[in-house]
Amino acid sequence: MDIDASRLRADIEATAEFGAVETPGDTHGRTVLTGTESDRQARDYLVSRLEDAGLAVTVDQVGTIVGRWVPEGVDPDTQPVVAGSHLDSVPEGGIFDGPLGVYAALEAVRAIKESDHQPDTPLGVVSFTEEEGTRFPPLTGSSVVSGVQTAETALAARDSDGTTLAEALDSIGYRGDATIEAGDWDAWLEVHVEQGPRLESAGVPVGVVSDITGISQVDVTIEGETNHAGTTAMDDRADSLVAAAEVIQEVEDLARAEAERTGTAVGTVGSVDVSPNATNVIPGRTELGVDIRDVERDSMDAVQEGLREAVDGVAAERGLSGSYETRIDVDPTPMADRAIEAIHAGAGAAGIETMDLHSGAGHDTMHVATATDAGMLFAPSVDGISHSPSEWTDWVDCATVTEVLAESMLELAGREVRGAA
Amino acid sequence: MDIDASRLRADIEATAEFGAVETPGDTHGRTVLTGTESDRQARDYLVSRLEDAGLAVTVDQVGTIVGRWVPEGVDPDTQPVVAGSHLDSVPEGGIFDGPLGVYAALEAVRAIKESDHQPDTPLGVVSFTEEEGTRFPPLTGSSVVSGVQTAETALAARDSDGTTLAEALDSIGYRGDATIEAGDWDAWLEVHVEQGPRLESAGVPVGVVSDITGISQVDVTIEGETNHAGTTAMDDRADSLVAAAEVIQEVEDLARAEAERTGTAVGTVGSVDVSPNATNVIPGRTELGVDIRDVERDSMDAVQEGLREAVDGVAAERGLSGSYETRIDVDPTPMADRAIEAIHAGAGAAGIETMDLHSGAGHDTMHVATATDAGMLFAPSVDGISHSPSEWTDWVDCATVTEVLAESMLELAGREVRGAA
Repeated sequence: MDIDASRLRADIEATAEFGAVETPGDTHGRTVLTGTESDRQARDYLVSRLEDAGLAVTVDQVGTIVGRWVPEGVDPDTQPVVAGSHLDSVPEGGIFDGPLGVYAALEAVRAIKESDHQPDTPLGVVSFTEEEGTRFPPLTGSSVVSGVQTAETALAARDSDGTTLAEALDSIGYRGDATIEAGDWDAWLEVHVEQGPRLESAGVPVGVVSDITGISQVDVTIEGETNHAGTTAMDDRADSLVAAAEVIQEVEDLARAEAERTGTAVGTVGSVDVSPNATNVIPGRTELGVDIRDVERDSMDAVQEGLREAVDGVAAERGLSGSYETRIDVDPTPMADRAIEAIHAGAGAAGIETMDLHSGAGHDTMHVATATDAGMLFAPSVDGISHSPSEWTDWVDCATVTEVLAESMLELAGREVRGAA
Repeated sequence: MDIDASRLRADIEATAEFGAVETPGDTHGRTVLTGTESDRQARDYLVSRLEDAGLAVTVDQVGTIVGRWVPEGVDPDTQPVVAGSHLDSVPEGGIFDGPLGVYAALEAVRAIKESDHQPDTPLGVVSFTEEEGTRFPPLTGSSVVSGVQTAETALAARDSDGTTLAEALDSIGYRGDATIEAGDWDAWLEVHVEQGPRLESAGVPVGVVSDITGISQVDVTIEGETNHAGTTAMDDRADSLVAAAEVIQEVEDLARAEAERTGTAVGTVGSVDVSPNATNVIPGRTELGVDIRDVERDSMDAVQEGLREAVDGVAAERGLSGSYETRIDVDPTPMADRAIEAIHAGAGAAGIETMDLHSGAGHDTMHVATATDAGMLFAPSVDGISHSPSEWTDWVDCATVTEVLAESMLELAGREVRGAA
């Protein structure tokens, strides 16, 4: 399959200009939040590139964009094989996280169109609205196409200023009226940067995702008593922060113990909010944001249970009150065997080495997998870095994963050669 | 000595109205930041009350207000005995912290004036500018009268919006031109709320301060590597927060060990700033604000040294970098024997029980003690609470400490009775 690597690169570089931020040295960053001017620019560019390639464009009620190509002689009602990702970014994020998956999908469809292959199904290219969750809840577009939530619920979500998603999409002209259902897709593939160091370390250009990690996010709150740091004797204190420090260490210990068993467990306290947070005041209240992940549910449960015991234990021991609220709890998502096999076969057809690995990050594919056969391909992340202007994937690796994607789509959609007997 | 308890209460209650904030139930809070309208109101009221009492008012270059009474027949150049405190507050602070000391001083002078006693020296009442350090650096007024810093340096200090103290004082008409030197005062006494539970627990109405604690404030920074909480294996992390958690616990352990020895050591991590502080990101950088206090210098040194070792140790063990910056380092301040004896004698003359204790909080008296004989009297704090609308001191206790202050000023200034042989 002939991928046009420079056309792919030009699309990603053009997209990198929208919301571009000043960054040091050779790095390239962008801030593309849903419903902002940079988002509108990125979407307009995608729509024009889809149309240039001869795809019919649809925008759904939450702004997810779909481009669709029906090969000659194919019944347009045949379930399509679809690929894509997202265009939004975290604040000062990288230029590959999202756009690589969208433009790899478009380039794969362009390459197939220009080839002698004759798929048996329509092919689709998708850009989901709000994957990152920076302005509105994460995985918004994919949750709606998968029936995880209704478009109405998603549109009513508000950003930190009180603006709804509906208003934000209206303001950039991307609140469509189509209803798109991933259940109507024959299969789904997403290309994404790995966001970790395993492919680079192994020297393998393409990763085949076996499972997407489950994610629990838990808010732990410990309440003691705010008091003067100078006039309150050590024995008279109810210091919420010292108690929280024990919990922070326990999260590390619990995750390490599970990681020894599964190889994939991680546990992180990523955020701490201390109140009142003044050097000379004993912290009356400390909140921790805890992130727990693994591809095995029982491992996630063990860390959560250990965390709960640690919070209760330290609170009882120190005469404080501890509470524990699960904010997000998503089971691990195995990729469909059919999708994994298609990617392996596609890589075989292209003569490209792959490596099976799990995804420690969440992706739109978590939702799509609840509605149809879904798979993911990873491209190597230089130094494993993402969500940063230092995020990088070599252009040759972008082209390689795109070639495997195109071959994998043919495996799913049929790779008969035009005019062959 | 006849203290007019209702006149004292009326002055404190009037002052409580300036910057009053809405508070629950029976509590009373106020926000009086230097150079704001509420500060101007509190100052105007004080000036009018000083003048009503026949005191001559002076305002120094940084806005410190002094009222001065020269008893009949006393050489105005005689070094005065001076008392006072401050009128500014922390945000949503209490109504006694500061104003009690200012109006106890005024009431003591009024009572002495109205009595038959004939002091040998002038008496002064002082309200220092910016004790709390909320808008400008703490202890500003007392640092200038004590020669710890020049008025020029103090006036150039900027608040978080870039406004200088000079501009802030100009805006309320309280940038004076007098130079006041505490070195010209014969002695200094400050009444303050205890801000701790010891007097209340002991059932004693007046505390005689033996020492003001020394204070070190240290900024600890631990730098690791910001990374994705999902895609970075436990063994590949450089998590600054888990390391900081060890340091937080070590501060508690170190302070407890010193407290067993001295009875007065305290150590607190009051503030934590985690970067980037998102639940799904491994914290690359964690800053801790550490507060270390004791009335013994070697105890403070031991905690600081232990902290330094803990930071270096945990950084080395985890492959992070740790740094340690001392932001404030003030030695313990013993009160003058002469002042302590005067307070004991004054309490004896009034027939009021006292208790010797240290101050775990910093006060303007720390600076004044570098320039003249200084002492402090504490009134009981209900439940030990301060810096809060829940701060309370019973009105009878306010009057009691004021009576002891008046008697103590007479002990220092001479208590000869008018017309006595």
